[in-house]
Amino acid sequence: MTRDNWGRWGPDDQRGALNHVTPETTAAAARLVRDGVVVSLAQPLSPKTPIPAHRAGIQHFLGRDGGDYAAGARRPGGFQFAEDTVVMPLHIGTHVDALCHAWYDDQLYNGFPGSGTRSTSGAAHCGIDRMGPIATRGVLLDIAALRGGPLSGGASIGRTELERAARAAGVEPRPGDVVLIRTGWFESVGHARGVSFNEEPGIDAEAGLWLAERGVSVVGADNFAIEAIPFPAGTVFPVHQRLIRDYGIPLLEGLVLKPLADTGRHEFLFAASPLPVVGGTGSPISPMAIL
Amino acid sequence: MTRDNWGRWGPDDQRGALNHVTPETTAAAARLVRDGVVVSLAQPLSPKTPIPAHRAGIQHFLGRDGGDYAAGARRPGGFQFAEDTVVMPLHIGTHVDALCHAWYDDQLYNGFPGSGTRSTSGAAHCGIDRMGPIATRGVLLDIAALRGGPLSGGASIGRTELERAARAAGVEPRPGDVVLIRTGWFESVGHARGVSFNEEPGIDAEAGLWLAERGVSVVGADNFAIEAIPFPAGTVFPVHQRLIRDYGIPLLEGLVLKPLADTGRHEFLFAASPLPVVGGTGSPISPMAIL
Amino acid sequence: MTRDNWGRWGPDDQRGALNHVTPETTAAAARLVRDGVVVSLAQPLSPKTPIPAHRAGIQHFLGRDGGDYAAGARRPGGFQFAEDTVVMPLHIGTHVDALCHAWYDDQLYNGFPGSGTRSTSGAAHCGIDRMGPIATRGVLLDIAALRGGPLSGGASIGRTELERAARAAGVEPRPGDVVLIRTGWFESVGHARGVSFNEEPGIDAEAGLWLAERGVSVVGADNFAIEAIPFPAGTVFPVHQRLIRDYGIPLLEGLVLKPLADTGRHEFLFAASPLPVVGGTGSPISPMAIL
Amino acid sequence: MTRDNWGRWGPDDQRGALNHVTPETTAAAARLVRDGVVVSLAQPLSPKTPIPAHRAGIQHFLGRDGGDYAAGARRPGGFQFAEDTVVMPLHIGTHVDALCHAWYDDQLYNGFPGSGTRSTSGAAHCGIDRMGPIATRGVLLDIAALRGGPLSGGASIGRTELERAARAAGVEPRPGDVVLIRTGWFESVGHARGVSFNEEPGIDAEAGLWLAERGVSVVGADNFAIEAIPFPAGTVFPVHQRLIRDYGIPLLEGLVLKPLADTGRHEFLFAASPLPVVGGTGSPISPMAIL
Repeated sequence: MTRDNWGRWGPDDQRGALNHVTPETTAAAARLVRDGVVVSLAQPLSPKTPIPAHRAGIQHFLGRDGGDYAAGARRPGGFQFAEDTVVMPLHIGTHVDALCHAWYDDQLYNGFPGSGTRSTSGAAHCGIDRMGPIATRGVLLDIAALRGGPLSGGASIGRTELERAARAAGVEPRPGDVVLIRTGWFESVGHARGVSFNEEPGIDAEAGLWLAERGVSVVGADNFAIEAIPFPAGTVFPVHQRLIRDYGIPLLEGLVLKPLADTGRHEFLFAASPLPVVGGTGSPISPMAIL
Repeated sequence: MTRDNWGRWGPDDQRGALNHVTPETTAAAARLVRDGVVVSLAQPLSPKTPIPAHRAGIQHFLGRDGGDYAAGARRPGGFQFAEDTVVMPLHIGTHVDALCHAWYDDQLYNGFPGSGTRSTSGAAHCGIDRMGPIATRGVLLDIAALRGGPLSGGASIGRTELERAARAAGVEPRPGDVVLIRTGWFESVGHARGVSFNEEPGIDAEAGLWLAERGVSVVGADNFAIEAIPFPAGTVFPVHQRLIRDYGIPLLEGLVLKPLADTGRHEFLFAASPLPVVGGTGSPISPMAIL
Repeated sequence: MTRDNWGRWGPDDQRGALNHVTPETTAAAARLVRDGVVVSLAQPLSPKTPIPAHRAGIQHFLGRDGGDYAAGARRPGGFQFAEDTVVMPLHIGTHVDALCHAWYDDQLYNGFPGSGTRSTSGAAHCGIDRMGPIATRGVLLDIAALRGGPLSGGASIGRTELERAARAAGVEPRPGDVVLIRTGWFESVGHARGVSFNEEPGIDAEAGLWLAERGVSVVGADNFAIEAIPFPAGTVFPVHQRLIRDYGIPLLEGLVLKPLADTGRHEFLFAASPLPVVGGTGSPISPMAIL
Repeated sequence: MTRDNWGRWGPDDQRGALNHVTPETTAAAARLVRDGVVVSLAQPLSPKTPIPAHRAGIQHFLGRDGGDYAAGARRPGGFQFAEDTVVMPLHIGTHVDALCHAWYDDQLYNGFPGSGTRSTSGAAHCGIDRMGPIATRGVLLDIAALRGGPLSGGASIGRTELERAARAAGVEPRPGDVVLIRTGWFESVGHARGVSFNEEPGIDAEAGLWLAERGVSVVGADNFAIEAIPFPAGTVFPVHQRLIRDYGIPLLEGLVLKPLADTGRHEFLFAASPLPVVGGTGSPISPMAIL
């Protein structure tokens, strides 16, 4: 396995490491379902959802609601209904990064030009609409449990610690897996207003490459950017650069992992599907673990 | 079984017929997975997504994109990224109605007051954030196949036709099912711009009640409102009124069912999860069938 | 003059004290123009514009921009253009309150029902689209100059202080005037990010009534809510309640008055016009003083 | 006078032909006020405001309204208020184009780079926030009156016709003027839903240059793009290209001119001020004529 997935699934490929998910891995993952309990891994979405300062939060507007009827509105047939609109950044709360979200040297995953992502049309290549639904084995690597509690901001998780967590879980990351890393960030500080987005615990680049070389399809975590922040000196989002752009691995951020961890299960059927916004750079998503 | 689910799961219940989905039904549904093929049931989302005239379509804005770098923007560490924001009605494309979406006589499902849904705060009761992830048996009732082609606008599907489709499929709707009804509307006319939202083929109220009495948890279709439009004289959205408000059954609208129908499978593991917008009246959703 | 303008201009009136502006007052105000210098009284509008925590700030999206052309976009005839969209609360920066913005006892100015302002349709009565352009005498009452510097948060300006400022200015508020009150708030703290909206210097209710009884058409200030905050014990927005709802006087908030004060002029031709958003409760506005 | 204003007001100038407006022209314009009647030249703004198909219309959301109180909401002190948010393209209804709105050969007015207008920051140069308030002589050239009725789509107005209209009006366009051209488009077809934006009556490039060479500061019309559409073969928005980019003349589109024409006045004090959206490419505006 090379350190680079460009060309691996052909010059036109826009799905990257999700190609490791095959009907066989999906069918095998479905056989992991034992008691049928379903656990949500998603944050609630509201104007209170924390978000970095350079993005605006969600706005939720009711265009028609119960207040209208209380104020005297009447519809034919006695029908009453409410409907609403959101103004929503696509990278908010629990969300997945499309392969067009991050790059360097003007080239996206698989060599597509960064300049193909424009104001007028969104991403011409590797948009979130290329991702499709994901149903495969999910693996929980619980670093917070390993360390005896939530990691603090800036704490870096290396390759050996991931290996230790995998051994503790009795699982081995393999092609097609969605690997979920619990740092304890969301449950300890990440759900509050005013939380700092200047630091978080997360994996380092070596840990990311170890996962990439195992062939995992998606890397997720219960923090906001997967990787340790502050970055190592002289680097900026090194895990994003290597995993998204070089390996075609989508990152799944802002997960809620404590309820899953509390079940004691470390492998399960993982199912999630982004909103297929044409040319979108990511999507809020509501993943589930089926135990 | 009464014609009404109010109080059935207690006075505080806000999940309605989804209570029919139990770990047992989920585990049984997972055992339906055979070859592991995953089929998306979702429309792409873009400014071209058709929408009724009283709603505005989606707007998609890139707040940072490849054009910025082409124009000379530089970031530390050579990092390049793109991100975006949508203005999006929650009832667009493939979406699910929350139990607070439709009601009559000023009361929502389970007797909650309609006046609890307000501009300032969204729905106090039965919001889409109460729904949670859904993983259960999906059943396809293919009326378009039964009739030999897509139904035309206004065509009404009754109870006996649903029964016939169930027999043809070799399945019997039962508690906890997500029942998907293929009319052929989306694939024939519903994907084009300028499509009329004044008429569609769909089920009638008796057909809806037959499903409700079987204990199905969700009713979905490949049209925009589940039910036949124009409505029978003197009624307005009778299926919405009975299923959502009286039975607590969410409606799943705007599905893409042709690719699923083409597989020949009529029962499968269905998995989908709405965006948990706090107090939202619905959510775009990307359901999958795992075969 | 009564303390209440309801019915004064007929039962259908929705313009309130702006009826005091007549062609005669406008023509007289135009004759105040001497040297023709035009001074803007408006804040710049950007995501950095300060706003109270219960409102979201402005978002500004370029739907087409120079980055597109740098990235390779080409249009017929070599034409290049950029365009943009804002998500904007109507009460932001320098803005004017419509007469439907604030009320009590379920009745707006002139007795219109508060319940006529709804999610589906905006304000049925007294919307910002009823206001029309304003060209009349502007009068600057410079309390900051009178006190020798910006007032601090919570500082209350009473009737006698307004009278003193009027004498210092050599002007007498009269029917049809737009009275602008300089507290020094915007220039000292109100232009910064993170400014507190829990307190501000401003007028008290007696001062407001003194202006109302003089027949002034609009009351403006360089703070965010005209009146002193915190409010006197047991009251909430007393100036809004009395001036907007009882007298039909629009409030003009968030003004930039230092450059005007620096000219030494205290009466001038004031010209401003809100965006006529149908059923809107206010509008950002860019007033000018013509000296 | 050359055909090109680049450099005319220095290399840093971003206000173009508005530099022709001086305190003297403003003071002289104020002296045109006779009877003090104020006429609005702005369209109402609502979801029904017509807009070209490539743009989305305005959306107006009440975040708090009378329905909330009817539904039972209560605020301290009995205070009741309503507020709202718009999603609004800046080029809608009656609006003014900033000098960064249109260009060619990658250069804006005065040689600024087109690539300075980006998704991340809006226009670095010639944004609408550079324009400031406008108070100067307005001149109405009434082509519809000259031709005996509204011009039809595609009808082109040349230089000689402008000269004829000026003679009929008894005015001569001169430096600092805002020239308003009435075609009859808005009042005849432009206010309806479903109006075509593929054609309109308007001026040709020669007519535009004649105005530019007279030193006028702004050119406005009661159509959506000032110039005749369809364009002459081989050209695309030639008036935009020449006036905005070469001469630094803002265009003022979507005016309502019939009520002004009905007064019989052809020169007046014109006052208008755009919203100072930082880096914006235009702004809705509500101009007034003070007679």
